[in-house]
Parts: sequence; structure tokens; C-alpha cells
Amino acid sequence: MKRKPRAFSLGLDFGTNSVRALIVDTENGKEISTAVVNYPSGKAGILLDPKDPNLARQNPADYVESMVKVVRQALQKAKKVRKNFSPEQIIGLGVDTTGSTPMPVDKNGLPLAFHDEFKNNLNAQAWLWKDHTSFAEAQEITELAAREHPEYLAKCGGVYSSEWFFSKILHCLRVAPKVFEAAYSWVEAADFIPALITGTLAPAKIKRSRCAAGHKAMFNEAWGGLPAKEFLAKLDPRLGELRDRLYDKTYTSDQPAGYLTNSWAKVLRLKPGIPVAVGAFDAHLGAVGAGVAPGKFVKIIGTSTCDICVWPNDRPLADIPGLCGIVDGSVLPGYFGLEAGQSAVGDIFNWFVNYLQPGGPRKGSHEELTRKAASLLPGESGLLALDWNNGNRTILVDQRLTGLLLGQTLHTRPEEIYLALIEATAFGALTIIKRFQEYGVEINEVINCGGIAEKNPLVMQVYADVLGLEMKIARSSQTCALGSAMAGAVVAGKAAGGHETFEKAQAAMCGVKPKTFKPRPEYHQVYQELYRLYRELHDAFGTRNWQGNLYHVMKDLLQIRDRQLEKARHLTLKKKKTKK
Amino acid sequence: MKRKPRAFSLGLDFGTNSVRALIVDTENGKEISTAVVNYPSGKAGILLDPKDPNLARQNPADYVESMVKVVRQALQKAKKVRKNFSPEQIIGLGVDTTGSTPMPVDKNGLPLAFHDEFKNNLNAQAWLWKDHTSFAEAQEITELAAREHPEYLAKCGGVYSSEWFFSKILHCLRVAPKVFEAAYSWVEAADFIPALITGTLAPAKIKRSRCAAGHKAMFNEAWGGLPAKEFLAKLDPRLGELRDRLYDKTYTSDQPAGYLTNSWAKVLRLKPGIPVAVGAFDAHLGAVGAGVAPGKFVKIIGTSTCDICVWPNDRPLADIPGLCGIVDGSVLPGYFGLEAGQSAVGDIFNWFVNYLQPGGPRKGSHEELTRKAASLLPGESGLLALDWNNGNRTILVDQRLTGLLLGQTLHTRPEEIYLALIEATAFGALTIIKRFQEYGVEINEVINCGGIAEKNPLVMQVYADVLGLEMKIARSSQTCALGSAMAGAVVAGKAAGGHETFEKAQAAMCGVKPKTFKPRPEYHQVYQELYRLYRELHDAFGTRNWQGNLYHVMKDLLQIRDRQLEKARHLTLKKKKTKK
Repeated sequence: MKRKPRAFSLGLDFGTNSVRALIVDTENGKEISTAVVNYPSGKAGILLDPKDPNLARQNPADYVESMVKVVRQALQKAKKVRKNFSPEQIIGLGVDTTGSTPMPVDKNGLPLAFHDEFKNNLNAQAWLWKDHTSFAEAQEITELAAREHPEYLAKCGGVYSSEWFFSKILHCLRVAPKVFEAAYSWVEAADFIPALITGTLAPAKIKRSRCAAGHKAMFNEAWGGLPAKEFLAKLDPRLGELRDRLYDKTYTSDQPAGYLTNSWAKVLRLKPGIPVAVGAFDAHLGAVGAGVAPGKFVKIIGTSTCDICVWPNDRPLADIPGLCGIVDGSVLPGYFGLEAGQSAVGDIFNWFVNYLQPGGPRKGSHEELTRKAASLLPGESGLLALDWNNGNRTILVDQRLTGLLLGQTLHTRPEEIYLALIEATAFGALTIIKRFQEYGVEINEVINCGGIAEKNPLVMQVYADVLGLEMKIARSSQTCALGSAMAGAVVAGKAAGGHETFEKAQAAMCGVKPKTFKPRPEYHQVYQELYRLYRELHDAFGTRNWQGNLYHVMKDLLQIRDRQLEKARHLTLKKKKTKK
Repeated sequence: MKRKPRAFSLGLDFGTNSVRALIVDTENGKEISTAVVNYPSGKAGILLDPKDPNLARQNPADYVESMVKVVRQALQKAKKVRKNFSPEQIIGLGVDTTGSTPMPVDKNGLPLAFHDEFKNNLNAQAWLWKDHTSFAEAQEITELAAREHPEYLAKCGGVYSSEWFFSKILHCLRVAPKVFEAAYSWVEAADFIPALITGTLAPAKIKRSRCAAGHKAMFNEAWGGLPAKEFLAKLDPRLGELRDRLYDKTYTSDQPAGYLTNSWAKVLRLKPGIPVAVGAFDAHLGAVGAGVAPGKFVKIIGTSTCDICVWPNDRPLADIPGLCGIVDGSVLPGYFGLEAGQSAVGDIFNWFVNYLQPGGPRKGSHEELTRKAASLLPGESGLLALDWNNGNRTILVDQRLTGLLLGQTLHTRPEEIYLALIEATAFGALTIIKRFQEYGVEINEVINCGGIAEKNPLVMQVYADVLGLEMKIARSSQTCALGSAMAGAVVAGKAAGGHETFEKAQAAMCGVKPKTFKPRPEYHQVYQELYRLYRELHDAFGTRNWQGNLYHVMKDLLQIRDRQLEKARHLTLKKKKTKK
């Protein structure tokens, strides 16, 4: 009997600085080829504004150009590795992107940034997830929703973030009304790519991602989809009008967004007509690729973290305050997808090493600091830190918070601070897990993925010791792209060589590494003491109703800072003028 | 008419790591010769115990040996500079030392450390001011005094410190009873040196320093001198018995401790019979040398600071909580000497540069960081720090406090932290000055002295901006030795070419530099905002009755640290044993 030819799926993972393509064997999850292409524009793919540290945009053309390159590279590599590989064997394709990364589009669904008139306008580009220019609008939306529609907030942790869809659109309306008026609609990057390559770009045709809509745009079928027109109109009448040009339906990633057009098949050198899954965010499909399931908590640890778990949608679940969202089907169909996250993890370690450069460029490397920190006992340094150098995403949802280091003496050494920063991020992780557990979500194991989880065993050991849970590491080192490829396999279906469901795709295509990290009871005990102190500082500086009223301290400092930065800019300008 | 030959005075300044000799023209304060000799023992003159970071002792033989060298060197230099200089022209001699630095002595007043039996016993050496082994005893004394003799505490700020006389003696009694029992009496280094060279070592003859007794041993004529025998006996009956072998009278530094003996005159190559002033602490005579007077606040800024001011002893003065002491005559006869201080200033900057080494050994020098920090506006970094890396001397009098840095983001740079640390010490200085003012002590100008005041104009400018007061700098760069020389000139008297009083000596012999630092109103305004926040953190972590109850946080961390350090030592020992 002739052996059935192997079937492959393609995952496309659009990250913050680059796009990755991954070709995976649908039967066993073997990753036969991968490629990465950096976005060409801006600084590492990000368009910045020297006058505003909160601004972070991306050129949508970068996505398209880099996608073409990366798919071709992945195919070439696959051919090198397997001489009988043919692109015809790729049966489906999935896409994940960062988010919320919305962009204004015209009537045909093309980004305004593609028009000559707007191509150099920062406000007409994709508003990258980490753009924080909209913090005032986020507060405005939060306050209005708290008064008039608390149910909107209940599903996204009680606070609407400056990183999200409507905050960004409202800010655009305020600062760049011409861009806002020229925009027929707004689409997430996660919706744009699948629509582009399946010829469904027109706003009426595009199948919007449940994941993006539910987590970032307050979409919920319980109240008829997006927030009510009257609600949006109270923020601005023009925002209310925009609602008619957005969407009423959303789709999970086991559904096809459409089928690869002939022209895009030619450009990408793939088979025309293969299904392309509805897009989702990187973390959500990453969790799928890591093996998320009820009781299995996935941590994607990078510069920041995204924490994902799921809960059967037929079992009761309270609204959990402080989360980034509870969305039916955002991760796996049939389950609530629960998202949380830490605003900075690897970024804090990188800040310490790259900005402070303790001990000089050689002595203060991550490797050296890790080696020295590994020999310290918990609490031995007397240090305690808060992991808020980039604000706090979960459970405080507050961008206007900053870092704190306490306990330094005249003998405190760099490796002690480094360990304290690792511990701080672990305490942050514990705070999130405790919040889930307090609201009845079971968590039996933690599956970690991302570069730090793979490369730094000290971080994993500290996390095990602090959380009191075994730390497992996802087998794949590119779980986002793998999750996308799994979505491609699911939309292709079993008959084509794919899978009937995500569960079956997971059983076949993903797993964890043999090496795990178990909590050391003596360390865990000390960390429980330290966590109590962490939690006191957390509540003192991070919560409004804490009796000592230190809540305002970090906020006042940021306000003074912003005022003085403005003044410093003014002085610099004056100096420049004087020189002329 | 033949011109009267010039008269000179010799100041001896026994510091933490070295002794300095200074020969000064009594008519105009001209410093004609100076020399410094490092103590030979231990690490930079300090005997340490690797098992106990709190321990800091000194070998009394170092004082004697280094004194001989340094006086000879100063005389040689003087002869080089002035060909007609003769040691005969030195009319008197003053001595200052660190303190409280007591040592156990035998019946003849000789240090036990000079006996073979005790020469290698750390507890038989001089207990250096910064020895903190006695923190438990300090608390015990404070608690007993608070219950039974609150008046004892009222004159030393409300808390008896682990750095002081009776804490150290009681700790010695507890941990080294053999040393305690072999000691006939205890003398301060400031008393030992003048007594040694004037042949008045015998405990019955020795003229004890008012400054040392009043500030560190709760001596006050109001209650008959030292604390009552019954009080000391409650701490330990043997401590009660020791009181009979201590002293009942004390003297100000305008009094001679005695006259240079023939044998010491020979060794030191000075004229026999010249008067030697009663000793005092370095900071107190340093303040005299800087020009302290009512309204003129002197800050001696080094690794730590000592702040000194005076207040006429015929004007009313309340007890000021948190001070290091209020002692009639400890600085100038006829005035209350008021002492305060910061546990670390230069030490914090040195910690940052030498331990953290931000930016590597070259980029992160004091000079480079100062240069970059000088261009920052107040508040521009968003940072705020507490200056407690070595505890807080005034106004909290609490060794069990630690540093705090708040406000760091992912962009915070070394020079921003460096400036925040400078600002923190300035806020600490402001807290002290405010405390004096709240209790009615007038402060019209600040005279700074010490290396940092002279070398780092940024520190002086920040202090001016934070305090809102003009910063002046003492003309002499060795005000302690100068103050001692002035004491020498006063005990020599006008007839011999000296002065009648300290005031007259000051008028003739000291002054300030022409360059001063004026507060910049715009900066001062921002610093007032920042100081309010500093004060909130200060009160939150440093005071017991603050409503939010964070008082325990730093203390708990230190307790956990001490326990874990003990454990780490134990593990290291076990490891070593296993290796054998």
C-alpha cells in the first residue's frame, strides 16, 4: 500500500519586531522549517516619536513585504531539509499578530498608510500594542463604562486599557481628526493579514477575530457585540457613527477567514485555495501551541508576559477583576479564554543589564549575573522589588506605576539586585495566579514558553520556588507560530490531513520538554514570607483604598516628571534657537 | 622694634582610617604644614570580623604609633616651608577623635589591648564609632530609660544608639565577660590621647571630655553626671559597679587636659610642658574650625555627615527628639552643642559607583555621573530615593532601616539614579534642619566642610536648591584638625600667642571660601514638591505610628536576611567539611 504523503501546515507569527513562518508536520508537530524576517521600518520595526515616549506605531507595508519574504524563505529551507517536500503539501495556514494593533483603513479595507497622502503620517499607521499615547482616553472610557455599562468592564478586568482598540481610535479622533475622518473603518493587524491574502479585505466581508474583538474592543454577544452606539457617541458622536462601519459578528480561529487567492498563492508560492484560519493574537495561539487546557496555565515570558488559561464555557465563572479579558472562544472554541499579563519581565532584566550596566559591559552580562545570583539564598540580600518599571497590567491595570527597590545597604551587589528583580517578576506572577484561584479557576500546572523560559534556568527555578508549582517548558520554542499552524491544520480538516478540533491538533502536535523545575520547600517557605511583604508594598502603592494612602506617590512623580520633561524640551529648543 | 616671633598651634585629628596633624599660625589661621598617616592594622585601620558585618574595632596601638609618625612628618614639612620655623613656636596642642570609640583600660589607664593576654582579642580593642554589634543592648537601654529615666533620653534625641558608650560596654559584658572583668575602667579615644601624652592616664586623674560624655554617655550635671548606679545595675549589676570606676566630672575643650610630659615631648619632638586641650569629637571641633556660631549651621559631609550647631545656654531650649545630643559646652563653652547626622552620604555615592559600577569602571565614575546628572532638571527622572542604605541617624535614630529607590522605568539611566541619591541625602539634610527649626533653633546659613563639599559642586548646588539656603564652604579643608589647633591656641592663652576664647580664635583663624551656592527658586519649588513625597515615604517606612503600618517592612527584611545569612554560612561550612 502506498503511504499517504505527509501533510504540513504553515503558521505565520507577526511579532513586535519581526515576522516568523513555521512549517509543521500535522501528524506529529515536527517543525521542519522556520524563518524570521525583521520589519524594515523605524527602530527595529517600530516607528517612534522623539517627542513622545508613549508613541509606538508600525508601517502596515512592513507586514506585507516581510510576510512574502519569510514564507519564501521557509519554503526554501523546507526543500533543503526534505528533498521530497512540496509546497503543495501545505494544507492550511494560520495567522497570529500582536494586539491590540489596529489601523485605519479605506472603503476597500486598504490601510490609509498605503495612500500617498498619509504614508508619512504616524497616526495613519498601525497603532502597535505598546503605544500608550491614549492613556487619557482609556481613563475616559473606563469612567464612562463604570457609570453606564459596568458589564463592559467586568469582562476586561474592570479597567479599559490605553493599549486597546477604542482608546487608540478615540485618541486618533482627538489628535488627528483628518486621519479619523478619512478612515472608513479600523481593523486589527490580526484581521488584516488573513483578509488580505484571502481577498476578503472589504469591511463588509472581513471575518473579524473573536479574540481581538473580545479582549480589546469589549465585544460580547451578551450585549449584542460591540459597545452600544449611544455609549460610543457619548465619548464622541463621530465614534458612535464609526460603530456602524465596524462589525457585528466575530469568529474563532477554528473557522476559515477565507481561502488563499490565486494571486497571493503565486506571490507566496503556495497552493491556491487552501484555507486561512481567522486570525488571533500571538499569546492566544501561543497558548494553544503550548498545550493550554483546563488546569494548565500558560505563561509566555518575553520582554513582557502574557498569561493564558481556559475554562469550560458551560461551567460557572465569575467576572475576575484585574484581568485583561474573559472571552468565549478567544483561545479554544467551547472555552472561555482568560488573559492576564505582566507589563515587563525580560524588559526589566534587560534594563538592568543594558541601561545600568552594573559592573561594566563584561562583568554585568545576564550570564554572569545569573551565575552569581544562583548561589544566593532567598532573602539573603535583604532586598525586595516591585516589578512595575513598565506599569502593571494584571491585576492593577495601571500604566502609571513605576519600579521600586527596597532594602539596599552599602554592601548591596549587582547580582543581588538582579535576583531581586527576578523575584519581583515571580511575585507578580504569583499575584496573577492567586487572583485566578480566588475566583475558582483551577490551576494545576504551569507551562512556560518564550526565550527566557528556555534560556534561563534560574528564572524558572525561582518561579517554581515562589509559586510553589512545578514549572514545565513547552516543547516548541515558537509556540505562537505553532499555534497558528495548528489553526491552519484545523481549518484544513481531517480529510485533508489536518485535524477535526484544536484538542486533537494539540494531542498530535504539541508537548512539554522532559526537564522541569520543581519547587524547593525550604525556598518556598521563605518566599512566602517575602511575598507577604511584596503584597503589602503592592497594595500600598498600587491600590486606591489602602489606608496609608501612598497610592498617589508614583503618580505624582510621573506627573512632575512629565512636566519637567516638557520644560527640558523647551529649554533645549531655546538653546538651539539661541545657537542659530 | 624686633617683631614678636609667630606662634603656632598643633591640631591632631584621629579619623576612621588615619590620623592627621596640622600646624597653624594662631594669628591668621594659615595652615603651614599638614601630614596624614594611615593606621597600620586591619582593613584600612579597621579590625573586622568576617562572621559579623556589624563589628568594627581599632587597635589602640595604631593611634600611638601613627601619632608619633604624623607629628614628626608635620614638623619636618613645616621646617621645609618656613626656614626659620622652630617646634618651640608651637604653643599648644588640641586633639579630636572619632566617637563614641571607647576602649577597656587597666588600673593605670593603659588599654587592655596592650596586654599580651588580650592583644588579639577583638573585644579588648577600641570599639570604633561605627561598630553596630550592640544594637540589642541599645534597645534595652532605650527601653529601660524610657520607663525609668526619660530625662536621660530627652537630651540624646529619644533613642540611645548602638554606636554609643554604654551599649558597647554592656555588649562586651555579655559576649566577653573576661574582657569586661579585666577592665578597670573604659575611656574614649578622645580622652585617651590627651591623657597619654600629659601623663594623666590614671583613671582618677584623667580629665574626661564633656563632648564625649554628654553626647554618648548620657552625662548631664542636671542629674549628677552619668546615669545613676541603680539604673546601670538594672541592666547588669556589674555595669552598676563599673560606674564607680568611671567619672563624675567632665571638661570643655578650652581647658587643658594637662601638659606635655618631657618624655612625650622628646618622642614627638615638641616643647615639653605645652598645654594639651581636653579632647573632643572630630565633628565638634570640626564645627569650631568651620566657624560654628548661633545661626550658623555646620555640615561636615564625608562618608556620613555630622551636623553641628550651637545655642546660647542662657536661652530656653526644648529637648529636640531625634537628635544625637544636646550638651552644654560640647562645641563651644557657654553654648549648648547640638549634634545631628546622616548615617551615610558619600558612602551612598561610593556604593553606587564602586559596588554597582554602573556603565562599567570608566563610564560610571563620580566625575562622569556628576557631569551627566548636572544637566537634569529636578523631577525629570521621576525618581525618588530614601537615603537609608546605612540606617538613619537623625531624626529617626534607627539602624534597622535600609535604602529605597522608587520611580524607575525601563529607561532609567545611571546618572538619574546618581542624582536621585544626591537628592535623597539633601532631603535627609532638610529633614534635620526642619527638626531644629521646629524646636526654635534659628538657622540662617549653612557652612559645609569635608571632601564632598569641596570637590562636588553639583552636590552643593542640589543642597542649596533643596534646602532653599545659601551653601557656604569652610575655608579650611581640614576643619577638624583646625578646630583642634584652635583648642590648642585657646589653652595656650593670649599671653603665649594664643587666644582668650574660642570666639576670638575663630575670628582670627577661620572663614569661608569666596565661592558659594545660591538656591535657584525654580528648582527649589520643584524640590519642595518632591520633598513632600520624600517625607511621606520617610514617615511610612520610618515611623511606628504611621497609619499604613509599613514600619515593619524593612525590619522584617533585615531579620529574614540575618537568618538566611546565618544559614548560608552554615551551608558553606558544611560544604567545606564535605570537601575535606
